[in-house]
Amino acid sequence: MSNRPTSSTVAQAAGVAQSTVSRALRGDPRVREDTRRLIEATAERLGYRPSWADLAPAVRPTRAKSIGVVASDLTNPFFPSLLNPVHDELQLMGYRFVLFAERTDLPTGQEALLSLLNSSIDGVLITTATLDSHLGAALAERDLPIVLLNRYVDGMDVDRVTADNHHGGETAARHLLELGHRTIGVIRGPANTSTSRDRHAGVLAGFAGSGVTIEEREGPYSHQSGYQNARELLRLPDPPSALLCGNDIIAFGAIDAVKSLGLDVPGDVSVLGFDDVPMASWEVFQLTTVHQPLSEMARTAARLLVERIEHDGDIGAGRERLFATSLVRRSTTQRHVGSQV
Amino acid sequence: MSNRPTSSTVAQAAGVAQSTVSRALRGDPRVREDTRRLIEATAERLGYRPSWADLAPAVRPTRAKSIGVVASDLTNPFFPSLLNPVHDELQLMGYRFVLFAERTDLPTGQEALLSLLNSSIDGVLITTATLDSHLGAALAERDLPIVLLNRYVDGMDVDRVTADNHHGGETAARHLLELGHRTIGVIRGPANTSTSRDRHAGVLAGFAGSGVTIEEREGPYSHQSGYQNARELLRLPDPPSALLCGNDIIAFGAIDAVKSLGLDVPGDVSVLGFDDVPMASWEVFQLTTVHQPLSEMARTAARLLVERIEHDGDIGAGRERLFATSLVRRSTTQRHVGSQV
Repeated sequence: MSNRPTSSTVAQAAGVAQSTVSRALRGDPRVREDTRRLIEATAERLGYRPSWADLAPAVRPTRAKSIGVVASDLTNPFFPSLLNPVHDELQLMGYRFVLFAERTDLPTGQEALLSLLNSSIDGVLITTATLDSHLGAALAERDLPIVLLNRYVDGMDVDRVTADNHHGGETAARHLLELGHRTIGVIRGPANTSTSRDRHAGVLAGFAGSGVTIEEREGPYSHQSGYQNARELLRLPDPPSALLCGNDIIAFGAIDAVKSLGLDVPGDVSVLGFDDVPMASWEVFQLTTVHQPLSEMARTAARLLVERIEHDGDIGAGRERLFATSLVRRSTTQRHVGSQV
Repeated sequence: MSNRPTSSTVAQAAGVAQSTVSRALRGDPRVREDTRRLIEATAERLGYRPSWADLAPAVRPTRAKSIGVVASDLTNPFFPSLLNPVHDELQLMGYRFVLFAERTDLPTGQEALLSLLNSSIDGVLITTATLDSHLGAALAERDLPIVLLNRYVDGMDVDRVTADNHHGGETAARHLLELGHRTIGVIRGPANTSTSRDRHAGVLAGFAGSGVTIEEREGPYSHQSGYQNARELLRLPDPPSALLCGNDIIAFGAIDAVKSLGLDVPGDVSVLGFDDVPMASWEVFQLTTVHQPLSEMARTAARLLVERIEHDGDIGAGRERLFATSLVRRSTTQRHVGSQV
C-alpha cells in the first residue's frame, strides 16, 4: 500500500503543485489545457487513481457560495460594465452572483440591504454607497465581509476599490483649458457620492488660477440630468463653449441637448465625460472621456471579497486599491473657435 | 362591546373596501393620499382603534419574500428597461427582487438557475428562456412558481407574458416595402429564442409576395452583431438600402456600421429596430422601431407570479398574456431614393 501513488506523487512527477493536480481532476477552468493533459498522462503512467476527496467537489457539489452585489439604477450603462466582470471573476472562484438592485430614484433606501442580512449571503459588494449611508456600517456590525467598489464612505474601515477620481477631474479640466475654452459648464453628479465629490474637487483644482468662467449644475447620474442641465446652460446669455460632465451618461444627455438646440458637437460645443463605458466608443458618440479601468477594478473587488470570506482572520484592517485614470481623447472636444491660446 | 367600531364599520362609513382601510392603516403606498385622509378622519370620528392584526404587518415586518429574476447579459439596455418595472411592482406587493445574471456568452448555462433551487426563493421570473432550455421544466418539477417574461418555451405549461413579435415583424417589413425599398438586409437575433423566431416569421410573412431581395444574417442580440453583420451586408456587390434589425441594440450597431463606412442614416441606408428601449428616442438615434410595452409587460409578469405564489391552488393551467406591438416612426427610415412606388 505504501507504494500506491497519491496526488502528491503525480504532482512531483509532473512538476506542478499538488493543488493543481486536484484542480485538474475537478475540471477547474483555471488549469490550462496543456497542463491538464500533462497531469492526466502522468497520472495514467503512474497508475494513480484519484481519491474520493480529490473528486468530491465535482461529483457532489457543495452549496454554491453567494455574494450579494448591491447596485443602483441599472439603466446607467456604467453598472453592467462593472457587474459583468464581477460575475465572471466570482464564477472562477466558485461563487455565484446575486444582485440586489436598489432604485436610487425611489425611497427604498435601506430595504434591499437589510433583507440581505436575513439571507444566506457570504459577503457583500457595494457599488452604490452614498456618503450619508449607514448601511455599510450596519452590515459590518454583523461581521459580514464587505467590499466597497467604485464609491466609498468616509471613515468606514472596509476594503475599497476605487479609481483616482480627483486626478481624473483635474485631467478633464486641464484638457479643456488646453483647448482654449474660457466659459465652461460643469454638470456634476449627486453630491452625496464620493465619486462626484472627488471628481469635482479635481475639476476645481484643474481650473484653479486659470481665470475661466465656470457655471455649475448638479443632478443624478442620468441622461435626463445631462439633457436638462445642458439645455439650461446653453440658453444662458453667455453660454459655455464646453460642457464638462460628471459621467458618460450625463455626457450622452448633454450631447442630445446640443443637438436638440440645432447645434453641433464639437463644432459649437465640446462635451467631455467620465467613466469610458463601452458606449463611449460607439461611432455615434466617439466621446472624449476619462477612462477608469472598470473591468480590472471589478475583478480586484471580487478577489478581495472572496479573500475576506475565506481568510478573514488573517487580513486585518480595510485595504485600499486605487486605480489610475486617464484621458481618452475622441471626437467630442476640439479647440475653441476664436481661442487665443 | 358590540357597538365598538371595526375596520368594516369605518370602511362602510367612508365608502371604501375593508381591505383599503387596512392598507391605509399600514401606510401602503397603493392607497391614494386623499383616500387615506378620508379614512383617518372617518376612523377618528367613529372612535375606531385599529387592532393588532390590522397593524401587525407594519409594526412587526415578516421575512421579506423573494423573487428570483433570471436575466442574461445586462449590457443589453433591453433588460434594465424590463427589470426596473418588475422591481417596482414587486416592491408594491411586499416582495424583494434578487437578480440572477446569466451570461449568455459564457457556458454557465444551467448553473445560475440550479443554485436557485437551493435558496429561499418563492418564485422565479425568467426573461431569457431559450427554446432548447430545460431549466424551466426542472424548476417546474420542484413546484416552484414560474413566469416566463419576454421569451417563452414551446410546450411549457407555465404563465407567460410576451409581446406579439410576429405582428411586430410583419409591421416592420411592410413599413420598408411602403418606403419603396427593394433590397433589404435582415439581421436576426439568436435562432434559439422565441422572440427572434417569431419576429423573423413575421418579417417573412410581411415580405411574402413582394418580390424584394432579402439578404439575411444571424447573431446574438448585441451591438457587435449589428455592427459586423451590417458592414458585411453593406459591402455586398448589391448592397441593401435598408437594414431590418432583430432588436434595438443590433440596430445601434448597424447605425454605427453605416457611419463607419462614411454613409448616412437614413440618406444612404434606412435602419429599423425592435423593442423601443429608452435610448431609441435619444436625439443621436431617433430610431424607427417596433414598440413593445415593456413596462406594462413587466408589471403584469410580476403580478402573475405573486398570484401564483399566494394562490397557486386556485389558478390552474398556465396563463398567457399577449401584448400588442406597434411601429414607432422616427428618423432612421425614409423613402428609398429612386423608388418608383
